[in-house]
This record gives sequence, structure tokens and C-alpha cells, in this order.
Amino acid sequence: MNAERTDCIGFGDLRLMQRPEDFCYGVDAVILADFATNGIKPRGTVMDLGSGTGIIPLILSHKTSAKQIYGLEIQKEAFEVACKNIHANGLEDRITMIQGNVTDMGIHLCPELSGTLDCVVSNPPYMAQLSGITNNNRAKTIARHETAGNLADFLNAAARLLKMKGHLFMVHRPNRMVDIFCIAREVGLEPKEIRFVSPKPGEVPNILLIHFIKGGGKELKIIPTLNVYQTNGAYTKEIRSIYEK
Amino acid sequence: MNAERTDCIGFGDLRLMQRPEDFCYGVDAVILADFATNGIKPRGTVMDLGSGTGIIPLILSHKTSAKQIYGLEIQKEAFEVACKNIHANGLEDRITMIQGNVTDMGIHLCPELSGTLDCVVSNPPYMAQLSGITNNNRAKTIARHETAGNLADFLNAAARLLKMKGHLFMVHRPNRMVDIFCIAREVGLEPKEIRFVSPKPGEVPNILLIHFIKGGGKELKIIPTLNVYQTNGAYTKEIRSIYEK
Repeated sequence: MNAERTDCIGFGDLRLMQRPEDFCYGVDAVILADFATNGIKPRGTVMDLGSGTGIIPLILSHKTSAKQIYGLEIQKEAFEVACKNIHANGLEDRITMIQGNVTDMGIHLCPELSGTLDCVVSNPPYMAQLSGITNNNRAKTIARHETAGNLADFLNAAARLLKMKGHLFMVHRPNRMVDIFCIAREVGLEPKEIRFVSPKPGEVPNILLIHFIKGGGKELKIIPTLNVYQTNGAYTKEIRSIYEK
Repeated sequence: MNAERTDCIGFGDLRLMQRPEDFCYGVDAVILADFATNGIKPRGTVMDLGSGTGIIPLILSHKTSAKQIYGLEIQKEAFEVACKNIHANGLEDRITMIQGNVTDMGIHLCPELSGTLDCVVSNPPYMAQLSGITNNNRAKTIARHETAGNLADFLNAAARLLKMKGHLFMVHRPNRMVDIFCIAREVGLEPKEIRFVSPKPGEVPNILLIHFIKGGGKELKIIPTLNVYQTNGAYTKEIRSIYEK
């Protein structure tokens, strides 16, 4: 069994156990959770597809007043750590972890949730199945590459789970934008807003945030780019506020 | 008949006759012509779909060493002004204007060009047929709204005309990006590069440049944003160089 460590991660004193050897959450998950916050209604229902050790459900429990937050994770080890994290933070009444594959979700797995959710969020594996160098560590490979579920599987699951006019918030890489738009429209999820995230002002973005609406009208809005660092290397004011609020 | 005026527009002393009452070219056409320049091979063949009074063929004749540049324009009046412009600049050997509709191009119109062109450029009407306020002036309405040809018509014509691995460069509005990507992939034109154009640094982009390759691989590259004005209101260095070179 690999070493675990517990960090105090802010967001109202949330505590998070992680396994550095397997996978630690990154800035992408934190930015996605913040991006989704405005779309989550009080007492709404939300599911995080590909939840890892539960970072997004935990942040959403702090930043929103969602009534029920589900986290789906395929990997047994990450799922178990997520369950411990929810328990350690006393959030069993609001967060429910489910172990399984996105391709089953809303079909064999929790069929009763199909067509009912107000919101879905997802930080899916970024790399196409055969692209990039796969990691020798199996847990990292599944988290980063489309081995267990590909982009279409994640978008199909979101489309299945959401009610009409429900919201999907996803973080991905800008180089997959055409794939994302084409598959999303095919499954009835209309991209409504995008926001690029750049390391510094004026630099090429390396992260893409997308807000979809199930059955939404055809019109895309571009939100001004979020810069992670200022030109001088310090975090921008907006990034600091995302981590602090 | 509406008033005409002739301007010296730079680009190696090009002279351009326009009809301010009907339609004048904008920064979009100039930026598009520059964006396309790197993709046009010496002695290559290029067609501009929806050429207006011929501004893009004229700029391309100056900025590239394309052997043959075609301009397609549906409106009789704009087509006639474009022909006069080509004559006034002595460019009859390199630029050929064609009057007709994009839906016919490469089928009834110039069928011999189908599958042969190295490059297509287009600044098509931006607004969906029924959206926005249509202009009382018929010439402006056809140039700006999808009355005579819609986005799918322009993308289909480009796909028909290009040889395999040929290049399409298009300028459009960012709010149509999902439509553009989905239709383009359907007709076999893969979006390979996008570049946003913003009025000022950090502002929401209002222009989108896209480079497609017919039969290209699936991977999108984002080029750093082009800003038209500096924060102090003066043109940026890059815009000045686009107008000067």
C-alpha cells in the first residue's frame, strides 16, 4: 500500500488525504470547482464524474449550498481515499461516493439518477488513449489517459444524467476543443461559455473551461482569460481569491 | 448608381475603389489576408469566397507570390467594382473575378477547379439568416447576413474546391465557433489553428481567425491573441506591421 498524507487545503478548513505516489489534485480541479459554483443552485443536485480522491465534491460542499453531491470514481484505491476524506470532514450527509465506470452511470449504475441532476462537473483524463507517454504507475495512467473512459463516454454520461437545461462544467486541454464541441453537440450538450486559462497574461492558454447546457441554444460566449500568474511570477488576484473564498 | 471613391490603401500602393453607401472593407479582411499569407505557397492557387470589392485578392497579390488568385462575389455591383479595381492596379494576369453563388462554385460554376486549389480564404457573412437587425440597404444585408449563402454553404464550397491537405483561412465571430467546428469537421475540414482578435489586451475577443486543413489530423493549436489597440488607444505594433508589410 502506498503512503498517504493529509493536508489542510483551505476552503473552510477542509482536510484532504492524498497519495502523492498515485495522484494529487492540481490547479485544474480547483479552478473547475470555482467555475461551476455559479451554476449550482441552492439545494441542487450535482455529480462529479471521475472524482479521484474527492477534491471537487469537497470544494463544492464548501463553495455552494448544493443539497446532494455525488462523486463517481472507477479506481478502488482513490474511491476509498475519497470516502475517508468525506468522513474526516463530516460531510457524509451531503457527499456520496460511488465506485464505477462512467459508461455504466445512469444505466446499470444509479439508473434512478438518469435525467434528474441539476449539474454535472468533470475533470476527465486529458490525453487520448494512444497519445502521450503513458505513466508506469497504473493509477496515474487511468487518471490522465482515456483508458477506462474517453471524452465521448464522459459527455454521454453527463447528457444522460442531466435534466433538460441542466449544466455541465468541464475542464480540459485547449487542443481537444474541436473534439469536445463536436461530440457535445451530438449528444445534446450545447457549449455556451468557454474560458481559457493561461499561465501568464498574453501567453498561450494551457487549460480550457467549458460550460454546457443540455438542450441549450446555439450561441457561444467567450469569458476573459484567467491568468494564473502575474508577469512578475506571483499568483494573480483572481487565483488567490479562488483559493481563498 | 451609388457614389464611388478611390483610396490608396497601402500594401505597395494598391488603389481601391469602394462604395461607402454599400460596403467598405474592414480590419477583418486585412487581418484575414495577413493570417492566410503564411499558408500560401509560391505559385499556388487561391480563391476568396465572398470577395466584395476585391480587397483580399488585392492584398494577397501584394503579400504572397500566389500564381492565380480567384475572387468569387455574388453581387453584381460589388463584382463590377472588384473588376475595375483589378484593372486599375494592373493585376489582370494574377487575379480573376467570378460572379456567382458559393453553392454553385466547383459544381456548375468552374467545375474544373474542384479539388485543385491549394488555398481558400473567406470572410463570409457573420450573422445567421434570421438574427440581428437586417440592413435596409440590400448590398449590406447580403454581405453581412446569411441570405445568399450560409456558413455550411461556404464551408462546403471550400471543402469541394481544395485539394487534399489544402488550407482554408476564415474570419468569423467567436460566438459562432461551435457551429464552425461542427460543420467543418462534417465536411472534412479540420480546424488546426485558431487565433482570437481582441480590441485591447485582456478584453473579450470580437474576431476569430481559423486555419483549417482538408483531411488534417485532430489537434487544435491556439495562437496567442492579436490585440488591435494598446491600452493607451494606439494601434499595436503587430497591427501596424500587418498594415505596413
